[in-house]
Amino acid sequence: MGIQEYPVGRMPRGRRNLITDVAGVRVGHYTVHQDRQHTGVTVVLPGSGNCYQNQPVAAAYVHNGYGKTMGSIQIQELGVLETPIALTNTLNVGVVADALIEYTLRQCQKDGVACTSINPVVGECNDSQLNCIAHRAVQAEHVWQAIDSAAEDFEEGSVGAGTGTLCYGLKGGIGSASRCFELEGRRFTLGVLVQSNFGSLRDFTVNGRPVGKRISAALSKQTGKAPSEAEQADKGSIMTVLATDLPVTARQLQRIARRAGAGLARSGSYIGHGSGEVMLAFSTANTRSRSGAAFETLSVVREDLLDAAFAAAVEATHEAVLSSMVHAKAARGLDGRVWHSLSEFDWMEKEE
Amino acid sequence: MGIQEYPVGRMPRGRRNLITDVAGVRVGHYTVHQDRQHTGVTVVLPGSGNCYQNQPVAAAYVHNGYGKTMGSIQIQELGVLETPIALTNTLNVGVVADALIEYTLRQCQKDGVACTSINPVVGECNDSQLNCIAHRAVQAEHVWQAIDSAAEDFEEGSVGAGTGTLCYGLKGGIGSASRCFELEGRRFTLGVLVQSNFGSLRDFTVNGRPVGKRISAALSKQTGKAPSEAEQADKGSIMTVLATDLPVTARQLQRIARRAGAGLARSGSYIGHGSGEVMLAFSTANTRSRSGAAFETLSVVREDLLDAAFAAAVEATHEAVLSSMVHAKAARGLDGRVWHSLSEFDWMEKEE
Amino acid sequence: MGIQEYPVGRMPRGRRNLITDVAGVRVGHYTVHQDRQHTGVTVVLPGSGNCYQNQPVAAAYVHNGYGKTMGSIQIQELGVLETPIALTNTLNVGVVADALIEYTLRQCQKDGVACTSINPVVGECNDSQLNCIAHRAVQAEHVWQAIDSAAEDFEEGSVGAGTGTLCYGLKGGIGSASRCFELEGRRFTLGVLVQSNFGSLRDFTVNGRPVGKRISAALSKQTGKAPSEAEQADKGSIMTVLATDLPVTARQLQRIARRAGAGLARSGSYIGHGSGEVMLAFSTANTRSRSGAAFETLSVVREDLLDAAFAAAVEATHEAVLSSMVHAKAARGLDGRVWHSLSEFDWMEKEE
Amino acid sequence: MGIQEYPVGRMPRGRRNLITDVAGVRVGHYTVHQDRQHTGVTVVLPGSGNCYQNQPVAAAYVHNGYGKTMGSIQIQELGVLETPIALTNTLNVGVVADALIEYTLRQCQKDGVACTSINPVVGECNDSQLNCIAHRAVQAEHVWQAIDSAAEDFEEGSVGAGTGTLCYGLKGGIGSASRCFELEGRRFTLGVLVQSNFGSLRDFTVNGRPVGKRISAALSKQTGKAPSEAEQADKGSIMTVLATDLPVTARQLQRIARRAGAGLARSGSYIGHGSGEVMLAFSTANTRSRSGAAFETLSVVREDLLDAAFAAAVEATHEAVLSSMVHAKAARGLDGRVWHSLSEFDWMEKEE
Repeated sequence: MGIQEYPVGRMPRGRRNLITDVAGVRVGHYTVHQDRQHTGVTVVLPGSGNCYQNQPVAAAYVHNGYGKTMGSIQIQELGVLETPIALTNTLNVGVVADALIEYTLRQCQKDGVACTSINPVVGECNDSQLNCIAHRAVQAEHVWQAIDSAAEDFEEGSVGAGTGTLCYGLKGGIGSASRCFELEGRRFTLGVLVQSNFGSLRDFTVNGRPVGKRISAALSKQTGKAPSEAEQADKGSIMTVLATDLPVTARQLQRIARRAGAGLARSGSYIGHGSGEVMLAFSTANTRSRSGAAFETLSVVREDLLDAAFAAAVEATHEAVLSSMVHAKAARGLDGRVWHSLSEFDWMEKEE
Repeated sequence: MGIQEYPVGRMPRGRRNLITDVAGVRVGHYTVHQDRQHTGVTVVLPGSGNCYQNQPVAAAYVHNGYGKTMGSIQIQELGVLETPIALTNTLNVGVVADALIEYTLRQCQKDGVACTSINPVVGECNDSQLNCIAHRAVQAEHVWQAIDSAAEDFEEGSVGAGTGTLCYGLKGGIGSASRCFELEGRRFTLGVLVQSNFGSLRDFTVNGRPVGKRISAALSKQTGKAPSEAEQADKGSIMTVLATDLPVTARQLQRIARRAGAGLARSGSYIGHGSGEVMLAFSTANTRSRSGAAFETLSVVREDLLDAAFAAAVEATHEAVLSSMVHAKAARGLDGRVWHSLSEFDWMEKEE
Repeated sequence: MGIQEYPVGRMPRGRRNLITDVAGVRVGHYTVHQDRQHTGVTVVLPGSGNCYQNQPVAAAYVHNGYGKTMGSIQIQELGVLETPIALTNTLNVGVVADALIEYTLRQCQKDGVACTSINPVVGECNDSQLNCIAHRAVQAEHVWQAIDSAAEDFEEGSVGAGTGTLCYGLKGGIGSASRCFELEGRRFTLGVLVQSNFGSLRDFTVNGRPVGKRISAALSKQTGKAPSEAEQADKGSIMTVLATDLPVTARQLQRIARRAGAGLARSGSYIGHGSGEVMLAFSTANTRSRSGAAFETLSVVREDLLDAAFAAAVEATHEAVLSSMVHAKAARGLDGRVWHSLSEFDWMEKEE
Repeated sequence: MGIQEYPVGRMPRGRRNLITDVAGVRVGHYTVHQDRQHTGVTVVLPGSGNCYQNQPVAAAYVHNGYGKTMGSIQIQELGVLETPIALTNTLNVGVVADALIEYTLRQCQKDGVACTSINPVVGECNDSQLNCIAHRAVQAEHVWQAIDSAAEDFEEGSVGAGTGTLCYGLKGGIGSASRCFELEGRRFTLGVLVQSNFGSLRDFTVNGRPVGKRISAALSKQTGKAPSEAEQADKGSIMTVLATDLPVTARQLQRIARRAGAGLARSGSYIGHGSGEVMLAFSTANTRSRSGAAFETLSVVREDLLDAAFAAAVEATHEAVLSSMVHAKAARGLDGRVWHSLSEFDWMEKEE
């Protein structure tokens, strides 16, 4: 039994159990491994077209603002996205933002769209335990290659922006999951992609079972020493990207994004001081055209029906974190310490 | 083994395991049972003095704003509390606010404090399944009696503002818990009191175990019918009051209050659309005097040390909800339906 | 020349130059004059129907949160209004909220609408210089009479919630104004109603001219003494209600409401510490029905066309404040001091 | 009489009437003029030391979020600044952020401070009428030179980040002003620096006089044609940086920053849809050390005394905008259109 069969919540998964189960969404990575640099970039594309021209409704929610995410101000004001969403390491945000600007300028030139103002959206996690972060190894070309390679099927784990991240004291990375629900006979999908880099091992639970404590005990036995307080601190961050095909306003979408925090809490997070936690969401069902009419007609779901999307956001976020850890591979930190993969342990074990 | 011995998290509890473990804090109830009215009011007093004159640092956080809490605007702007915090039913907020105004006017007259502007803080949950809410049964006298009777020891469960509330499809009520932590050799306490009225039975977990599903199955077997979709909707609300003796600014306190949401998520909440979730917090370590000097000196904890308070907020909130359910007694709704108490079931049972 | 002809801004006024130029909107007052109580209540009704059943899109914006406005949390979360908006004195918010609850319960009973949860919206200013505020003179009956008497034509100045308020060191009160604009051949109206109670005389300007300073000099000459520092403090508050028939989302409406602050600044306000400033807005063009379909269709104006509504909000707010002062009548404070009316002075005078 | 003698408000100016009147603050520019690129970068340094190590209390306020400012999320969460503040053109934010990262890494390496996480703060305005913005002409070296050249005396007008900006249909740029006030015998200063790029000519007022309309009429007479609607649109943005030596918490500082909007409104702004307006503020009186004690003692001004700082923020912001326009020099846009300088007109003229 893999993660795909392991029960997380009560809602049905999408076909791929990935954020790309939302039609049109694609994900691409570029991974850097050179010298002491182990990092990368991951991009989420909301659709196949020029999203500067046809802007999906979007929302941003700051769960814990110890982070450097760029682009949230305009999303909160205008409720739309105008570039792909890129995730990378903390010190690479400037470079990656500039690469998104260049990408958008080229797209608009190609499509004959006037473009002098661009709001690049870039999230980040601090991967400095595994990556010599001061080098800002991710370059513009890497971002463009990640965009070019974006597809419906994509790798999870130690890849792209998840190459150097840690989660609950183990190896973290990119994870994804999706949930489906029906409203009035129509089927909708909500998908989540995370870049996981938060939590301390002792707090990690799987469906409530104290798996982290058991792994910690096993590792202490193996190494002959207990983990230090510092090792236990909840540093790092978690970036959560949510996509859905449910027709919503930006306000409704922000409500959905806010629920992702409950998904994080389910694996044991306390939302540590040092953990930058930002949620970015978009809907493919409502887009705003730059060349639109003076009055546009928007289809919007009835407010109380959002409950289905709320539950989907919680479950998919919960599972995406777990999936990021299951798929990530053990790695050695810059200081020589080994960061294990959850997959090395029997995390699905039954309660004794 | 009672709830006091049942493990929730990893931090030590305070002596009473109540919000009143924070020195100076007192809690009082007034419970209404007459005709079809089953409701009440619960007050939390931050200290023994006139809190209009010496205002504790305070914070308010809106986790889900489908609620009618009064007083949050001024707390967010000025970062202080100037009345006790009262909790009651949704339609009684106006009456209870007016009672707090009257109480404060009297206190100030007695103490010779000029007072023409008062910010009463009143939270609420909707108890209309058990209480004929349109009657606004809680009167000013009830509020004053609750204040007069406030003490360090107080009842939990179906009492005061928790008289008519439901939680995870069972009887809810007032619950409380506390956690202690040391920083640089000094011991601090964080306490939580909740008025629980949220969640659906199928989602309820105890330390990750699907206790709600098992109870639901047991009940369905007993009654011979499955719970309807409507019964499963996450309506109601949850009011969370946090108190601490840690010296913090209002901004830091708001960060602590925000963590309570992770505590709610740990028992299975999806933060339903209809669930008004508001966190109100105060610190007894920093107060602002109306007759203060032009420049006051504030003691403030170092930002990264907040992690201990964050974890305490999560654990105490988690346990306070559980405690409210364990202490609440089964009750019959206005429509005749019986709402069971968690204490009727073997919720501490081991995993099969 | 009256205020109606005096130029404020560049946009055309509506027919009445009142908030009721937005079709369907009505305003009612109840004024209390008894003993030392000089206060009242003013209500703004968004439409003729039961607004609990058909809820207009709404927004709330807190410009300075030293205030006790009730109801903003739910408006910000759900983006709709479900009761009329009532304005009163600071200590009467509880009583007035309870009266709105009772009113709504009756309406719903009459209309056969289930109703157990109500979000009364009540704003306030502190009128304690003219009104013995501790008495909470406004009673439930007064609120209901204000609602019953609501009409398209209504009085401005020292009436209803404006009975005891002060503005820029002169008599304040209720003021209203409106502006019209065309978008794609369709004509729209934005109206504003204020309860003015803020500012100090020395800061008051009329279209940039230092009218406050001149009045201050004239009064000092008359009384033989300069105004004290305390008299100059910017206490009090300003409540601003905005109505429009432009089809907008709640997010867009919040953007409009936020512009009202620029209107306040135009007459000289510094947004004093003690000045509670809250904006409440609704659109009559989009309502949400409780018995709506799963997916509703919303007409929404293109984002960049909001500029017309922004300018209208600024101008109408600016003028509404001026109008409140021009219409208010001189009054004697509880301490015997006379608060003059702007109408006693030649405020339209040309620059020397 | 120059701008320094022209009365704006009622408070005394600081010695230089610049943001650098706040002791320790320095400002530097780098200006780019090459081919079709007319842009630059302006940096504000809060002190002479390594501000990553000793972080000044800071606040960010979003007045209108149609903008790309980077760094606000962390400021809002933690209430401190850890890099200088840089201002530049919209599409250069990524490059400039990366340059601030490099600068901070070098500083920390020199000072032996561990540094793997940096929150660069970069604001922006869109100068694409005068600058071929797609080229991102500002390079990392330019940022470092601006920092190296930072001084207490600095140029205003068409320089640094103000090289290509427009304001109220005339040439905009960098402007600065300061105000002083006494509290309990201690003297404090609040200074403001703006990058002005907003407003339409017809709305521009100087102390209430419709100077913009008169200039518009004069220009129309000269050119023989009226300005088009498009020319009148309030596009662009305004970045406002506030510095003070008043001891405040981050919450109090955010209240001060919020008042800057009233300063903008005083010259006629409607806060246009397209105008990104962000306020960034810091206090040099309270800094947080990375190597601090567990409990630090903070000096904080009494809340109601903030009124002086509020008025200072309004007046200094108002004057800084005016100063930016007076100092800016006329320039030719990329399309050949001439953008005049306010200094060409008799803006101090008396009312006819």
